[in-house]
Amino acid sequence: MSDLGTVAVGQSGGPTAVINASLAGVIEGAHAAGSKVLGLRYGIQGALTSDIIDLSAVDTEALAHTVSAGLGSVRYKLKAEDYDQILKAFDAWNVRTFIYIGGNDSMDTADQLAQVAYQRNLPLHVVGVPKTIDNDLPFTDHCPGYPSAARYVAAVVRDVGLDARAMRRIYFLEIMGRHAGWLAAASCLARDVEGAAPHLIMLPEHSWDERLFVSSIDEALSRYHHCIVAVAEGFKLPEGDVHLGIIDPFGHVRLGGIARQLAELTKERLNLPNVPNSDILGYIQRASSLSRSEVDLQEAREVGRRAVEVAADGQSGFMVTIERLSSHPYRASYGLQRLDTIANETRKLDGAFLVSGRYDVASEFIDYAAPLVGELPKSYRLY
Amino acid sequence: MSDLGTVAVGQSGGPTAVINASLAGVIEGAHAAGSKVLGLRYGIQGALTSDIIDLSAVDTEALAHTVSAGLGSVRYKLKAEDYDQILKAFDAWNVRTFIYIGGNDSMDTADQLAQVAYQRNLPLHVVGVPKTIDNDLPFTDHCPGYPSAARYVAAVVRDVGLDARAMRRIYFLEIMGRHAGWLAAASCLARDVEGAAPHLIMLPEHSWDERLFVSSIDEALSRYHHCIVAVAEGFKLPEGDVHLGIIDPFGHVRLGGIARQLAELTKERLNLPNVPNSDILGYIQRASSLSRSEVDLQEAREVGRRAVEVAADGQSGFMVTIERLSSHPYRASYGLQRLDTIANETRKLDGAFLVSGRYDVASEFIDYAAPLVGELPKSYRLY
Repeated sequence: MSDLGTVAVGQSGGPTAVINASLAGVIEGAHAAGSKVLGLRYGIQGALTSDIIDLSAVDTEALAHTVSAGLGSVRYKLKAEDYDQILKAFDAWNVRTFIYIGGNDSMDTADQLAQVAYQRNLPLHVVGVPKTIDNDLPFTDHCPGYPSAARYVAAVVRDVGLDARAMRRIYFLEIMGRHAGWLAAASCLARDVEGAAPHLIMLPEHSWDERLFVSSIDEALSRYHHCIVAVAEGFKLPEGDVHLGIIDPFGHVRLGGIARQLAELTKERLNLPNVPNSDILGYIQRASSLSRSEVDLQEAREVGRRAVEVAADGQSGFMVTIERLSSHPYRASYGLQRLDTIANETRKLDGAFLVSGRYDVASEFIDYAAPLVGELPKSYRLY
Repeated sequence: MSDLGTVAVGQSGGPTAVINASLAGVIEGAHAAGSKVLGLRYGIQGALTSDIIDLSAVDTEALAHTVSAGLGSVRYKLKAEDYDQILKAFDAWNVRTFIYIGGNDSMDTADQLAQVAYQRNLPLHVVGVPKTIDNDLPFTDHCPGYPSAARYVAAVVRDVGLDARAMRRIYFLEIMGRHAGWLAAASCLARDVEGAAPHLIMLPEHSWDERLFVSSIDEALSRYHHCIVAVAEGFKLPEGDVHLGIIDPFGHVRLGGIARQLAELTKERLNLPNVPNSDILGYIQRASSLSRSEVDLQEAREVGRRAVEVAADGQSGFMVTIERLSSHPYRASYGLQRLDTIANETRKLDGAFLVSGRYDVASEFIDYAAPLVGELPKSYRLY
């Protein structure tokens, strides 16, 4: 077992409902190894600005049950001149273990630090902990954060589906997912009876087919007198992404508006008197306290604990992964994957999860996602 | 005790999280009185189109726990020629009791029917059951539907507050409330520590004060490094309502966009590089299964049961009201109010619930609303 020194930990990228459970796991792992643990405020920026918190006395149970990133988070792209400063700070704080909890961009940051430390022969172990509601990291069955966000989306789409059914309305709901439709796909998971919402699921993995779109809405209206469309923000019309014209530090354009655009198209094509209602589900979907998945809470904490163990085993440059052993009952174990194979890769929905000729997902997707999300309460229907 | 005949019941206006609990209460009340109970599909339209369901065998427990309007709902303004048709249908079905569950417009419909039946000396008893997330019916302490929607709003604003805190962001959230700010005001109910979200609460009852707006955001940013603005859709800028240019059958314009407009103004006035994020909370806030209030569920059911008892007492032309007896512990009893004094009246936030010189609500509002919403889980903070 190698000397962990002080464990530094940071949270990065968009918050989730369980990213604090992973932080709690890291703290518990460090305690178990007899190490001090330092929190970097606002991710890697905390190392650059010496903005750190001693996490030794944290109530990890209470922390694990609080949504969003308790240390503060950041979207910061490392510059070449940052390495020296970060490594010097780590050295000054006796940090020999760095755990970074985040998504694609954060694994890139962790990978760069691991590589520079290796090249310089420094005694620093860097381990990544996966976190993203987008579920788009490769080499892991799924990402902590996704099951809880998926559970929220499933419950919301069921509820707005019952609302639209009562009002005999068409309703478009725009769900997060830039390149991959994992979260919008989860909108189907509370579909408990024939005709239940959503009636169309439109993902970045789907291509635009106007005839299919119009005929699917038409069919839902004539059969069920309402129609719910769950659309990923990254669904593409031929003219490209619908966005707000704002760009983040990683060069990502802020998306938003596809639901409204599809609603306007629907009015036109179906000759409706008004534009159907549409909403963007918004920030609440990624870190809601109202519908966290039990599997997610447990796994998020466990990957945090494992990350410290991996460093204690003398390994660096890896991300902890989740490997599914069985779906019924759901069981998983944990593995490792090299950071340089993960960084900036995006995992789209597997082909087997899609169906052709319909804006929907295959039953294989439900088999995959349902055990992660857990059981959702049934609704009772009078007609 | 007068002969109820068959009890007809309808749901009207926007769905809520507990309007089915009121329906369950009506069914239970009819059972207790030994009466048959018929559901009108899509509110009063069901009487016009003979679209009815026998509710005798309904599982009222399961129904009470399902959100949205299980019978279907409607926004329909009665025409003069409708009265004959409805009263004829009621007579054919042996309906001598009509219970209408709804908000302002629905109480107007119920009032008209009660008056026509009275003028014609028909043996029909009409009783209204209050329902609205807007909480804007007069003469009742609050309306079933409001506590649950308020609980949802409070939890969401706490959660997006933690998200914005982690990301050091300004965020505008637009909450339902056309003429009255009851629901947006509830955004403060999970504010558990100094500096917790929301930092500004902007209601239709507030007037526009640009200096106050800008300085309040500025202050939140410098003290807390993030700022959450909870704004009611009906908050008015000097140029009037921000809306989508769509009008419903009652002549109400569909609102939407004030959050985005305030965000754009904030960019301009604070010289920000980007427009701050904003979301419209959307339809989910009115009928979410994720955060129903226990008080609300019980009261919604009880007002349904009482409505049948009121008819059995031989009374007609009344709405059941809730009268608060005490806040700590919370206790209420039930009363009656004439429908003609309620119809189309809007209750705004009481003056005592507002503060001057701040975009916020007074502690008196918290004393009023907190017992309705119930306890919300605390969040744990690292800094």
